[in-house]
Amino acid sequence: MTTPTPLRAEGGFPVVGIVGGGQLARMCQPPAVALSVTLSVLAESETASAALVVPHSPVGEHTDLEALREWARHCDVVTFDHEHVPQEVLTALAADGVNLHPGPEALVFAQDKLAMRRRLTELGIPCPRWARARDAADVEAFAAEVGWPVVAKTPRGGYDGKGVRVCRSVAELDDWLAAVGEPGSLEDGVLLEEAVDFTRELAALVARSPSGQAAAWPIVHTVQSGGINTEVLAPAPGLDEQVAVAAAEGALRIAGALGVTGVLAVELFEVRDGETGAPAYLVNELAMRPHNSGHWTIEGSVTSQFEQHLRAVLDLPLGDPSARDRWTVMANVLGGDDEDLYPTYRHLMARDPGLKIHLYGKGVRPGRKLGHVTVFGAGEDEASLEDLRERARHAADYLQGVVRE
Amino acid sequence: MTTPTPLRAEGGFPVVGIVGGGQLARMCQPPAVALSVTLSVLAESETASAALVVPHSPVGEHTDLEALREWARHCDVVTFDHEHVPQEVLTALAADGVNLHPGPEALVFAQDKLAMRRRLTELGIPCPRWARARDAADVEAFAAEVGWPVVAKTPRGGYDGKGVRVCRSVAELDDWLAAVGEPGSLEDGVLLEEAVDFTRELAALVARSPSGQAAAWPIVHTVQSGGINTEVLAPAPGLDEQVAVAAAEGALRIAGALGVTGVLAVELFEVRDGETGAPAYLVNELAMRPHNSGHWTIEGSVTSQFEQHLRAVLDLPLGDPSARDRWTVMANVLGGDDEDLYPTYRHLMARDPGLKIHLYGKGVRPGRKLGHVTVFGAGEDEASLEDLRERARHAADYLQGVVRE
Repeated sequence: MTTPTPLRAEGGFPVVGIVGGGQLARMCQPPAVALSVTLSVLAESETASAALVVPHSPVGEHTDLEALREWARHCDVVTFDHEHVPQEVLTALAADGVNLHPGPEALVFAQDKLAMRRRLTELGIPCPRWARARDAADVEAFAAEVGWPVVAKTPRGGYDGKGVRVCRSVAELDDWLAAVGEPGSLEDGVLLEEAVDFTRELAALVARSPSGQAAAWPIVHTVQSGGINTEVLAPAPGLDEQVAVAAAEGALRIAGALGVTGVLAVELFEVRDGETGAPAYLVNELAMRPHNSGHWTIEGSVTSQFEQHLRAVLDLPLGDPSARDRWTVMANVLGGDDEDLYPTYRHLMARDPGLKIHLYGKGVRPGRKLGHVTVFGAGEDEASLEDLRERARHAADYLQGVVRE
Repeated sequence: MTTPTPLRAEGGFPVVGIVGGGQLARMCQPPAVALSVTLSVLAESETASAALVVPHSPVGEHTDLEALREWARHCDVVTFDHEHVPQEVLTALAADGVNLHPGPEALVFAQDKLAMRRRLTELGIPCPRWARARDAADVEAFAAEVGWPVVAKTPRGGYDGKGVRVCRSVAELDDWLAAVGEPGSLEDGVLLEEAVDFTRELAALVARSPSGQAAAWPIVHTVQSGGINTEVLAPAPGLDEQVAVAAAEGALRIAGALGVTGVLAVELFEVRDGETGAPAYLVNELAMRPHNSGHWTIEGSVTSQFEQHLRAVLDLPLGDPSARDRWTVMANVLGGDDEDLYPTYRHLMARDPGLKIHLYGKGVRPGRKLGHVTVFGAGEDEASLEDLRERARHAADYLQGVVRE
């Protein structure tokens, strides 16, 4: 592969390379345009979501070290649309002197859930009770401690509910336990976690730069459906102030301790203390990149997660993460039966002139994340929030073909 | 020239062609990304401002009919970064069936200031007193009516203060009068206007779609310096409510009567009635495209002028043009001595985390518009506005190398 050099603006502006051409890379293009930063996307295909909107988008595999090396020569820093670049490839690039953000020593904690649980526990970050199981006896012992059901996860390779099972007996894990020790996502064992009795799911989103500056967005409520985040309410309504502060501090501490550079999303469970009934949080998952729970920031925050990610990986001073409105609501658009979205969004624009539509240029497949919609408002009360939720929900459902009027 | 077909998203989404690769075309890319609309820019060079950020940017001359024809075959609609495409080229493209927005019959009024003055006067839109001069006697007669100085303009080809003279005698127009009747910008004569004793300059920005839907942004105060707009205050502080309504209605009426499609900017003088002293407005200039006076809408309005322009030329329902904050202030960044802007904006980001920086990817030349900065705030009072102005002014000056701290 011979990659042409990206054309960049005069004036000393850098090139940011992004491995992977999904919607997260795509949504970095608008702030890159404003900041005069040139993007280069190593894309899965020439019609990948980001490749459609970024001029310099050579096609290459994220597992192909030679392709990455050749491409990275053109980039001042390299960051990621996903966590799937193998550790051995990352460490080889780092050894070459490629400026990776986040680096392999941080990314491992987003790639390996067992490593993440170990590290967060060392740091004293609240987590669900967990254990590593290498055989049936390990599972029985953990279940005896926390009770059935037990949540089992493949330490590597899972996303959007894949690689997760809620089990009521060891038998439901026979196939996974048989794969322990074999090369693959279960090589080191199965991660077991207690089934948390949570009141709702939250997310803490922060950004951290290589020089250690950090900024936190308000904590949001992430509404899940079928293992997929379908709606985000920013900020999380009625959130206990102490939990909000503790969760943001926890996320900033994780970012610092793990050496994360760029955006870090910390998915949380909101829980009640078993004895006192006081609200608290537990960490569910980590993602080291812009995250679905932060799409609301495009319109809803002074600095969006995509702009902040670029600023952070370039070690530029971070922007103000404050919310711009009282409430911002984001709803994901999932693929339905309708293959032509253009006539559909025309209708939505007529119905709701304040609706912000974001589509990712992806072909329609049932259940696939095709885009999102955002609405915002200044109304203080719960009714204002419910109105925003209704608007966002209707638009997302309509684009999915769930409702017709 | 053989132009490759632009890659577009699946789902029935259109391709919008833009003639000219300046910053206005460039700033259409972020909303095009969100809406999944594919842009194709006919650019002056491969490093034109917009060509750096839009994948499909073939190089071609805006005066070359065959190049335009070949390129326009790939576009569902064609719009413009500037008004310089000659009428004969526009009418030939329209005759081919190219979907031009705005069309030649509207654009002529943005290309020819004499035609504009005639048409607005017919419509009863308030204008400065004006006349067409073909010889010295015409100038003397007009000066006898309105008094010296007289403002003289070339009807075609002027911008940013070029093609405008403030004259105190006929002798100062000798060269222009000599060119009257010759092919060129003065062929039909010189446009003379009274020197308006205005209190400040304002701008009314509206958008109109082919099916006739229209939307108006709040009226803004455009602060000028040396014939160039350097600062925009949105909305115009202390503007008389009747003037605001009349100016917005006037702009919407112009858009409708002239058949404008897309964004229309109407530059205004705020004046006081000579007899009653009541505030009023006069129309100065028209531009049929996104305009410098509307850059504040990127962050400051629910729907930016760039998103609205795309929606309008595609005949999609228009978005909400409401302001998002009490005040939004935009300041233009002009070229100074400093060729490397990247270290400079790094400093500004550290100083002001709420500053929104927009740079156009253009090489630095003294006085050239290289970008703009925007700040916004909720504070009601004049001091809040002054604070925003100070922040925007400092950042723009700093990028220009005017101030150092």
